Amino acid sequence: MLVTDLIRRKRDGAELQRNEIEFLIDGYTRDSIPDYQMSAWLMAVLLRGMTRAELAALTEAMLNSGEVLSFPELPATKVDKHSTGGVGDKTSLVIAPIVAAAGLYVPMISGRGLGHTGGTLDKLESIPGFNVNLSVTDFRRVLAQCGAGLIGQTQEIAPADKKIYALRDVTGTVESPYLICASIMSKKLAEGIDALVLDVKTGSGAFMKAEKDAVFLAELMVETGQRLGKRIAALITDMDQPLGNAVGNALEVAECIDILNGKGPEDLRELCLILSAWMFLLGKRVQNTDQGRELAEQMISSGKAREKFREMIRLQGGDANVMDNPGLLPQAKQKADVKSPVSGFVTGFMTEQIGTAGVLLGGGRAKKEDSVDPAVGIIIHKKIGNPVSADEALCTVHYNSAQRFDQAAPLIQQSYRIESAPLLQKRPLVHQIIGDSK
Amino acid sequence: MLVTDLIRRKRDGAELQRNEIEFLIDGYTRDSIPDYQMSAWLMAVLLRGMTRAELAALTEAMLNSGEVLSFPELPATKVDKHSTGGVGDKTSLVIAPIVAAAGLYVPMISGRGLGHTGGTLDKLESIPGFNVNLSVTDFRRVLAQCGAGLIGQTQEIAPADKKIYALRDVTGTVESPYLICASIMSKKLAEGIDALVLDVKTGSGAFMKAEKDAVFLAELMVETGQRLGKRIAALITDMDQPLGNAVGNALEVAECIDILNGKGPEDLRELCLILSAWMFLLGKRVQNTDQGRELAEQMISSGKAREKFREMIRLQGGDANVMDNPGLLPQAKQKADVKSPVSGFVTGFMTEQIGTAGVLLGGGRAKKEDSVDPAVGIIIHKKIGNPVSADEALCTVHYNSAQRFDQAAPLIQQSYRIESAPLLQKRPLVHQIIGDSK
Repeated sequence: MLVTDLIRRKRDGAELQRNEIEFLIDGYTRDSIPDYQMSAWLMAVLLRGMTRAELAALTEAMLNSGEVLSFPELPATKVDKHSTGGVGDKTSLVIAPIVAAAGLYVPMISGRGLGHTGGTLDKLESIPGFNVNLSVTDFRRVLAQCGAGLIGQTQEIAPADKKIYALRDVTGTVESPYLICASIMSKKLAEGIDALVLDVKTGSGAFMKAEKDAVFLAELMVETGQRLGKRIAALITDMDQPLGNAVGNALEVAECIDILNGKGPEDLRELCLILSAWMFLLGKRVQNTDQGRELAEQMISSGKAREKFREMIRLQGGDANVMDNPGLLPQAKQKADVKSPVSGFVTGFMTEQIGTAGVLLGGGRAKKEDSVDPAVGIIIHKKIGNPVSADEALCTVHYNSAQRFDQAAPLIQQSYRIESAPLLQKRPLVHQIIGDSK
Repeated sequence: MLVTDLIRRKRDGAELQRNEIEFLIDGYTRDSIPDYQMSAWLMAVLLRGMTRAELAALTEAMLNSGEVLSFPELPATKVDKHSTGGVGDKTSLVIAPIVAAAGLYVPMISGRGLGHTGGTLDKLESIPGFNVNLSVTDFRRVLAQCGAGLIGQTQEIAPADKKIYALRDVTGTVESPYLICASIMSKKLAEGIDALVLDVKTGSGAFMKAEKDAVFLAELMVETGQRLGKRIAALITDMDQPLGNAVGNALEVAECIDILNGKGPEDLRELCLILSAWMFLLGKRVQNTDQGRELAEQMISSGKAREKFREMIRLQGGDANVMDNPGLLPQAKQKADVKSPVSGFVTGFMTEQIGTAGVLLGGGRAKKEDSVDPAVGIIIHKKIGNPVSADEALCTVHYNSAQRFDQAAPLIQQSYRIESAPLLQKRPLVHQIIGDSK
């Protein structure tokens, strides 16, 4: 098999066979196919697309490039949720305890923040002592004991994806929905799960700003998951404003604790309940999403989800006292309000810019190598639909450097769209659902 | 300037600026841009195309990556011809002496054969002693003395093209007309010429088998040459059967000597006269191509072109006695005829297969590293339009290995299309002319 022929055929829009895609991925992972051939092939894929069969073969080849976890010892269904990322998107920390509290298993392998979007691992690490770098053995033990574990990607899982992602990053081949799908799904399916709920964000704070792009990616992921034998559904959810009120690692953990205590912002609570309901449905814990939602509400109101989160923190080495005293989380030295320049109604956000302001404060990463300040962030007081008076606080910035505040504050203020009348129609939280409950 | 941004913009179909293309080519030549980024960019160019301004900038950047010859000391116009290659395509060896004999200068940098097409350097090297590896100083001296010199590409000329071509060869990015144009034109314009005639082949023995592809490449090359200030024209010429009767290095040199002696096959003679006429026109030696053709005929009939070729051979170290005694050229040990299986008329060739048969005999290269046997080849007796009887010789194969003959002979026989009636219409030798005589 000649690599050049495979590149040429993909370039000309032909469909590659499963064994040809395996040959490419296997050769690249083992360094027998050089970067320059893989990057030409990736560009051809980006511009020519793939068939669904090719995409499934690519995902499976990347999945099988490394260790694929399995948990035959766990007596119930394993289910996970994946989000394509946004600003203030913190549902994993609420959902994992809810779903585990109801008896399913959630072996969640998460990522770090990059650019305007946050990452679950960074949020968890703001809890003093919390260790996301568990060995597979320890991960297995935590899962067996409490039903949920949250760790980072190990060296052993989907090494082909790691290598290909690094190459895509420097060759202009990040934006292909096919390559994004294969990257996400190869890692998620290495978790040894039976079912997966995808939260595909759309709007000004999402990677896929246009809904049609989000839907296309969701369809690819759902079909790929089904071809690889998983129960799977995708929810296209709104990221046209930050989710919840908190943006910043420790601030977001505190907000999650609020939700688990039956409080917290309505949009975040609502999305957590919906996503949990779908996890219950695909995990065959309930018959329909209404039952799923009810079960999720019970897990919160009974305090079981809160106690599950406490147990997770403790088992992963964290200080569980943060549950009762969020003041134990890292606190920024300074706080200051960003005020509205005019009176009116909030009608929109340049949400990505709110995320970028968080990076400027030190709470996120511009480059992969950057370290993050867990304490800084933004508490949003005014969201879409809220009336606001001139000079009233739009949000409160938590910061550790006046210079960084001075960079971030104007960005936050400018990211608000304030008009004399409120929007006539509110965007729904869930735009569409793709996939089914089979 | 970020390479990834340049890749991304070309990927999305945007037009790059001249300084951006210079940055890419310069960085790649100096090894500061890695192969994997260049190959992604090349694939994006192949699939997205380029504007004419981008193509001119790319060609000029590649041209300026190395030494650009100039011959201010030569008192007349410098003009060259380039062919996209075919089977039996040997016009350079006839044209260079014709044009130099009439007082213009022909600084011709040529290539070697690869695949089914032959190469001028391989043909010249079948002349005992002929040295194609002159230094630039010696090349300059030969040119000044006799008006024509034929050498191979030096390390100093267009190093960006050498590096990019090697990368294209292994990344499925050879077939882009834009990249082909930049590769050809950057090398040709490094010769320090004032005018250039392009012989773009079309038909079953050409790289561009479809006429529309040949025309598109020709248009790109003509416009690029004009943008870079050269007088230029392209002739789309027929390569639907071998040109002349000889295929094979020494056999082709002997055929060229026949032409210079006023003999030889009509199609080869005709194309040499037409191409010479255009070189005279673009070189401002004549007012129109009729005058140019007449001048070319005079150079042959007067013996001046033959004496010029003799002088060229002598100045480049070759045995000029081959002019009077072609038997001094390498001779194959064996000859055998390939016969017609049926009676009828020759109506077509799978011309590329004739070239491949030449490679199988040892006269060409399957890979760049292969060495060639100068003596072997094919003398074609029957061409399109000729009647043929069953068992009559279609051609005579000159060979040095019975095993190689056994591989090549059936290929040659099968490449003939023989039908009961001749073709109603003959393909013209020149299909179209692109460019003008300004």
